[in-house]
Amino acid sequence: MNEQPLHIIKVGGNIIDDDQKLQAFLASFATLKGKKILVHGGGKLATKLAADLHIPQQMVEGRRITDADTLKIVTMVYAGYINKNIVSILQSHGCSSIGLCGADANIIQAHKRVNATLDFGFVGDVDNIDTARLSGLLEMGLTVVMAPITHDGKGQLLNTNADTIAQEIAKALSDHYQTTLIFCFEKPGVLMDAEDENTLIPIIDPDTFKKLKSEQKIFAGMIPKLENAFKALESGVKKVVIGNAEAWDQLIAGKTGTTISL
Amino acid sequence: MNEQPLHIIKVGGNIIDDDQKLQAFLASFATLKGKKILVHGGGKLATKLAADLHIPQQMVEGRRITDADTLKIVTMVYAGYINKNIVSILQSHGCSSIGLCGADANIIQAHKRVNATLDFGFVGDVDNIDTARLSGLLEMGLTVVMAPITHDGKGQLLNTNADTIAQEIAKALSDHYQTTLIFCFEKPGVLMDAEDENTLIPIIDPDTFKKLKSEQKIFAGMIPKLENAFKALESGVKKVVIGNAEAWDQLIAGKTGTTISL
Repeated sequence: MNEQPLHIIKVGGNIIDDDQKLQAFLASFATLKGKKILVHGGGKLATKLAADLHIPQQMVEGRRITDADTLKIVTMVYAGYINKNIVSILQSHGCSSIGLCGADANIIQAHKRVNATLDFGFVGDVDNIDTARLSGLLEMGLTVVMAPITHDGKGQLLNTNADTIAQEIAKALSDHYQTTLIFCFEKPGVLMDAEDENTLIPIIDPDTFKKLKSEQKIFAGMIPKLENAFKALESGVKKVVIGNAEAWDQLIAGKTGTTISL
Repeated sequence: MNEQPLHIIKVGGNIIDDDQKLQAFLASFATLKGKKILVHGGGKLATKLAADLHIPQQMVEGRRITDADTLKIVTMVYAGYINKNIVSILQSHGCSSIGLCGADANIIQAHKRVNATLDFGFVGDVDNIDTARLSGLLEMGLTVVMAPITHDGKGQLLNTNADTIAQEIAKALSDHYQTTLIFCFEKPGVLMDAEDENTLIPIIDPDTFKKLKSEQKIFAGMIPKLENAFKALESGVKKVVIGNAEAWDQLIAGKTGTTISL
């Protein structure tokens, strides 16, 4: 067990889509000392590109169906445009980063999702993280910037949820490092009332979670995120924090956001 | 001086644009033993995407002017779609590869081309190769797949000629490895008559080159390529070979193509 800390930060569309926010976040992220991995989502760029190219996007229960054309678009936008822009900005702040997708160095192997009632298309569920490769890159002093694209080892790229990637990486690297997993989104953390930022819950442990759930005092959309956070903690992740990307440094320090603990 | 061989192979549009040829090339490339780097060009995909998005492409003297929209397209297509597809196919053949652009790990730093009479836009001329980073990845047993995008270290990505990238990498790594640089294109090698494949010149040394040039027995478009090849050899590259991608293994063995030597 390596006692070195590792921060894994996931940022989503609200940062990616806003050039000013992205620049500010990356300038700040570059100053974070020690080993770190940035997992980024996609944002609205892929949707816009699909619309510009007249490729219809099929959404089922809030999830994008990834047909062959859409896979091509998300590969271009996530692993190309967004990933390389983030890397070039981080380099300009003296943070030597390397932009990858899961196919690179075989870091994230996945399989095409099997679902009896719905074909999600080229969507991947994670099977394996190559921790030796990933920690090898971190040990070279590189910050890994990961796009939410994986592969099946048979030549097929797959669109994969960025939250899941962040979590699977954090779990897998918990044998190597003291991992902290930080989910950045547009809210200041887990709220009792999604519309009222004053209802932030600073700490959630399993008992609190059970109580909040039974009293229906928690925004429904947060429940799977929290269940996943507890799974990550049970798999050895040291700390999971959920909060606003604009205050990520305070999130790490535990001064804001919601900390999920066992 | 490390005596290990390193092969740097550049493939261009004629392979990239033809799915069957690309699959065959990569299956064969995966079997090449030892350290290797694949530099790929762009092909017609970027031009097609620009047309589909109604982004006019300005060509001056056969060169693409890279405005901001075009830079976005080439970043998506070269560093995203093409690069990640190549990596996933190589992985399926058991060749553990890592797909990068020049911004990744700061491997290729460049500057925006300065030209008194013509603004090429976001086109980069190479300043520096980080050989420590690049050889570090090779020493991990990874095959590097390089897209023709660089950066200026100030947060700006730049479109850069793939031949130049292959050559600059070969020159820079000649202190570390016994480098062979192979340019794959649609012709079997350097031809005296561009239309007649039977006029292949198997070996060109400086004397032969001078003679061929003075007798105008060489296709004009090949002259800058050959001049660059001689420069690479003078900088320590062991061998430069030019020939057809479909026979790249015979190129390496010196059985076909044109070998340029001092």
